[in-house]
Amino acid sequence: MKEVVAGIDIGGTNTALGLVDRSGNILAEKTLITTDYPDIKDFVSAMVSNILNLIDKMPGIKLAGIGIGAPDANYNSGTIEQATNLVWKGIVPLVKYVKEITDVPVAITNDAKAAAMGEMIFGGAKGMKNFIVLTLGTGLGSGIVINGEVVSGHSGFAGEIGQTIVVPGGRDCGCGRQGCLETYASATGLVRTALNMLSEMIEESSLRDISPAKLTSKMIAEAALKNDPVALEAMDYTAEMLGFGIANTIVFSSPEAIFLFGGLAQAGEILFAPVREYTEKNVMPIFKGTYKILPSAIPESNAAVLGAAALAWDELK
Amino acid sequence: MKEVVAGIDIGGTNTALGLVDRSGNILAEKTLITTDYPDIKDFVSAMVSNILNLIDKMPGIKLAGIGIGAPDANYNSGTIEQATNLVWKGIVPLVKYVKEITDVPVAITNDAKAAAMGEMIFGGAKGMKNFIVLTLGTGLGSGIVINGEVVSGHSGFAGEIGQTIVVPGGRDCGCGRQGCLETYASATGLVRTALNMLSEMIEESSLRDISPAKLTSKMIAEAALKNDPVALEAMDYTAEMLGFGIANTIVFSSPEAIFLFGGLAQAGEILFAPVREYTEKNVMPIFKGTYKILPSAIPESNAAVLGAAALAWDELK
Repeated sequence: MKEVVAGIDIGGTNTALGLVDRSGNILAEKTLITTDYPDIKDFVSAMVSNILNLIDKMPGIKLAGIGIGAPDANYNSGTIEQATNLVWKGIVPLVKYVKEITDVPVAITNDAKAAAMGEMIFGGAKGMKNFIVLTLGTGLGSGIVINGEVVSGHSGFAGEIGQTIVVPGGRDCGCGRQGCLETYASATGLVRTALNMLSEMIEESSLRDISPAKLTSKMIAEAALKNDPVALEAMDYTAEMLGFGIANTIVFSSPEAIFLFGGLAQAGEILFAPVREYTEKNVMPIFKGTYKILPSAIPESNAAVLGAAALAWDELK
Repeated sequence: MKEVVAGIDIGGTNTALGLVDRSGNILAEKTLITTDYPDIKDFVSAMVSNILNLIDKMPGIKLAGIGIGAPDANYNSGTIEQATNLVWKGIVPLVKYVKEITDVPVAITNDAKAAAMGEMIFGGAKGMKNFIVLTLGTGLGSGIVINGEVVSGHSGFAGEIGQTIVVPGGRDCGCGRQGCLETYASATGLVRTALNMLSEMIEESSLRDISPAKLTSKMIAEAALKNDPVALEAMDYTAEMLGFGIANTIVFSSPEAIFLFGGLAQAGEILFAPVREYTEKNVMPIFKGTYKILPSAIPESNAAVLGAAALAWDELK
């Protein structure tokens, strides 16, 4: 019998399931509508029965474990806690519920930690013991790996690099505080910066024709590639803030590499080149040249399922 | 035969040796003058022969390992690198040299990481898996423990929390950059802040009678206890910057406790109370109440030798 694990990515709208082998091949997939299950126990039943259905259709395949990535998940306690984007409120003991109806190992972690696990097992961090994945989407998530282990810390919530304050009294953050790194260095942060630049600068810009609600980081990156002056300035400032945040992170854990993942990271060299420059400029001299800043090697479309599957494989070690 | 380890604290002027048992009792001690040995190999010979002399005088005692704490030491490579305060320049392969003339396990680390090791094995962090020791002296050193291991990172130099930039363009730092946390939150930082307050404030203060070169953090703490308005303001600002730095650290690794050690930490509650307040004010809400800020439980006079001995015991695990 060939062993596979189930990698599950729970999102506010959809939940993706995949059966994944040790090499990171997704052998079967299925999507559930998360909001169809306002009762968490119904969701767990549907999730597990869908996994077992996929297994049944593949002769010679055996389920070895289940890994789950979800927003606000706590690896230490196996729970989802106070998730703002999920239908289930309060503290949800998801691992406990899954274990009640299966007998394989089950683990859960948040999206960014799952991304780090995916990078370590299937991606660009194979063989690395110390690295960090930054997910640059709506916010800035981070998965920190030290001595080969994803850091959860005492509370289980470690790894909130996006929530370091970089500008005291700066931009309002969803967390209720001000000036957090993710309000500057994320896809959303880039849009906020572009709006600010539109107010500060007088140059013509294609971005002036797009309503703020519709403006995306992708549009800004594309405009920057066409030498739009406002977009260029916005990219540069975003890179400066991200480089500053990365420099402060390096002195803490001295990673071998920092992988950038997610919407904003898609901008490519127009982002990576200045990020590398600003990081090197801001980092303590002793760390210069000791690290690399790289794009994630995990394809974005499968990253969440592969990350969750990597978590399951790691549990089985 | 009862096993002991040698804990060695290499300083710019003196080197302290101690034989330490598993419970943290120092059974014998000796001091060398570091500057007497401009050739590192002579120093290593003297160090090892002094250890063996101490052992010989104690029947029934056997040397099980050697742990060394030194400035700018690199645990990963077993070297001291570019130490500004030691007589030996460049990259010194100290562990290699010691191993050439002994057959017990030898390890080296820097002062702050040794302090963390001491706290874990003999002090207030017994049983903790995730904690941080901040040494508040001339600078701000840090030893970060994650999953029960002191973090060295890819380069071996991880744990430079004092070198996170907290005020871009702020105070000049010895590292060549500006605004590093240790320029505000350290014994030296407190003195700098008091000087600044003396320029900003018009209130009378006993600190106005002391030349800047003679002003110490201890004098400022004592003046604050006597309600000196400038000293009080300086303590408060120092606590604010330290609390800010601790808050940004907590979101990274989520420690169970942060131990404050060294000259500035001796100030006691007049420092700890506002540090706790400013940390809680600045930390991401999800971490509120998940950590403690505590004084080190290791007596300062023996801390360096005990930390180095703890490193040796940890290597023997």
